[in-house]
Amino acid sequence: MPEAAPAPTRAAIGAGEFDRDTAVTRREPGVYDIDLSAGWTIINAVNGGYLLAVLGRALADALPHPDPFTISAHYLTASQPGPAVIRTETVRTGRTLSTGQASLFQYDDQDREVERIRVLASYGDLATLPEDVRTTATPPAIPPAEQCFGPDDSPAPIPGSSAITDRLKLKLDPATLGWALGAPSGKGEMRAWFGLADGRDADPLSLLLAVDALPPTAFEIGLKGWVPTVELTVHVRHRPAPGPLRVSITTRNLAGGFLEEDAEVWDSADRLVAQSRQLARVRLG
Amino acid sequence: MPEAAPAPTRAAIGAGEFDRDTAVTRREPGVYDIDLSAGWTIINAVNGGYLLAVLGRALADALPHPDPFTISAHYLTASQPGPAVIRTETVRTGRTLSTGQASLFQYDDQDREVERIRVLASYGDLATLPEDVRTTATPPAIPPAEQCFGPDDSPAPIPGSSAITDRLKLKLDPATLGWALGAPSGKGEMRAWFGLADGRDADPLSLLLAVDALPPTAFEIGLKGWVPTVELTVHVRHRPAPGPLRVSITTRNLAGGFLEEDAEVWDSADRLVAQSRQLARVRLG
Repeated sequence: MPEAAPAPTRAAIGAGEFDRDTAVTRREPGVYDIDLSAGWTIINAVNGGYLLAVLGRALADALPHPDPFTISAHYLTASQPGPAVIRTETVRTGRTLSTGQASLFQYDDQDREVERIRVLASYGDLATLPEDVRTTATPPAIPPAEQCFGPDDSPAPIPGSSAITDRLKLKLDPATLGWALGAPSGKGEMRAWFGLADGRDADPLSLLLAVDALPPTAFEIGLKGWVPTVELTVHVRHRPAPGPLRVSITTRNLAGGFLEEDAEVWDSADRLVAQSRQLARVRLG
Repeated sequence: MPEAAPAPTRAAIGAGEFDRDTAVTRREPGVYDIDLSAGWTIINAVNGGYLLAVLGRALADALPHPDPFTISAHYLTASQPGPAVIRTETVRTGRTLSTGQASLFQYDDQDREVERIRVLASYGDLATLPEDVRTTATPPAIPPAEQCFGPDDSPAPIPGSSAITDRLKLKLDPATLGWALGAPSGKGEMRAWFGLADGRDADPLSLLLAVDALPPTAFEIGLKGWVPTVELTVHVRHRPAPGPLRVSITTRNLAGGFLEEDAEVWDSADRLVAQSRQLARVRLG
C-alpha cells in the first residue's frame, strides 16, 4: 500500500514568511531597523498592508499593550524594498489602552531619511476583553473556497511584480472577478477567502495585511491602473480563530478622483475580527 | 395689515458661533492658543467633534492646503472648557496633498501641558477636485424635518450639561428616538437632520463636528451611560451645499466592550460629503 503523502507543514504563528518579513530589530528604544522585503510587492509597489504590519510590529514592541485596537496610517511617499528605519513615540500609556506614533523612513541617494509612512495607533490587550458579542453584521455571502479562484486560475496575468501573490492563498469570489475576464461588474465589491501561502494562521498583526491584500474594487468598477492608498485605518476587534479568513471590500463613494474601500475580515468562527476604511486616489486619465 | 416678522438672520460662514468657538490664535508658527468653549459640552464632556474641528482649524492654518481630506484623532484624556494650546507639525507638503500632525494640550494644576488629543491628517483643496460623481451609496431614509424631533421636543431631559444642544438644530428621526421614550429599538442606528442653531451653513470644518454630534447609537441599542470615543477618522469628500445636512449613524459591531459608529453626512444636493468611523468604549456595568 503506498504511503500517504505527509500533510503539508503549516508554519506556526511566529515562524512564517509573514513573521520573517515583518520582523524588526530594535537598535535602541524607539528605533527599529528592517530590510523591507521584495516578497510583498504588487505591480512594483510594496503592499500597504504589509507596511502597516511592519509598523504595527514595532509599536507592539514599543508600547506596553500587545494588540493594535485602532491604527491609522498616512502613506506619504512610495516605499521600496530595502533598508528602512522605524522611529516610535509613546504618546500615552494607560491601564487598558496605550497610544503610540510611528514613522517609517528610507534613505535617499545621500543617505538622508525620507519619511514614507506615519502611523497613529491605540493598543490594548485583546485577550482581556469580555466575550460578549452583540454584532449585528453578518458574514459576507461568498461561495465555498473550492468555488472561488486564485491568481493562478486567472487568465489575466498581473503586469509587473506579483510577488505578493506567492505569499498568499487568495481565492476570489467569481462574482467579483469579472475584471479578470474583461467584463467588470461595475459594482465596487471585492471578496475573497484569505490565507497565507505557508499555512500560518492569522493573528492580530496579519489582519493589518489582510485588509489591503485583495485586488482593488476599482477593477470591478471598470477602472484600470494604480489606486494608491492615501490613508488606511484598521480596527482590530478580536483575535482571529485558526483557519481561513473571509475578506469583503466595498466601495460606495467613488467621486472627485478619490474612493473609499471598506473592508471587513471574518474568521472561521464567524467573528467580525477587523474592520477598515482606506481613502485611495483614483487615476481617471 | 401686520408687518411680517423679519426673516431670522443666518450667520455667515466665518461669523457664527462655531467659527467663534473654534477660532485659534497663532502664537508662533505651529503653536496656537484657544480657550475651549463650555458651549459644546454634552453631559459634562467637551464634544469630540467640536475638538476635532478646533484641531482641524489649526492644521488648516499650518498646512498649505485648506481642507481636511482624511483626519484621524486619538482621544487620550478628557478635555475641559478652558485654556488649551495646539502644537502642529508639517509632515509632508505635496502638490495636491499635505500631511500634518497636531496635538491639543491643556494644563494641570502645576501648569504642565497634558496631551488631550493627537491628530494625523492629510489635507487637500476640495475646490480643485473634478466634479465626477459615481457614488453608489444613497441618502438615508429619514422623514422630512417637520416630522422629526429636536431635544426640546424630547420628554427625556439630558442629565448634566446639554449646552451643545443650544448650538445645534438637531431633528432626530422618530425611528431612532425610542430611547428617549424608554423603548429603545435595539438597533444600532441614529439619524437626524443637522444644522447650526444660528443658521450658519456647513463647511468642511463643521462636517468634523457633524459626524459626532448626535446621541450615541448605544442609546438605541438599550445601553445607558457614557460612550467615550477612543479614535475618530473622518473623510471629507466635497464642500457641502448650503442648507441642512442629514446625518446617519450605524453600529454593527458591538462586542468585547467596544463598538464602532459609522457616520455618513449628506448635503442638500444629495452628495455624500463626509464619511467617518469611530471606535468607542462601552460601559456595560
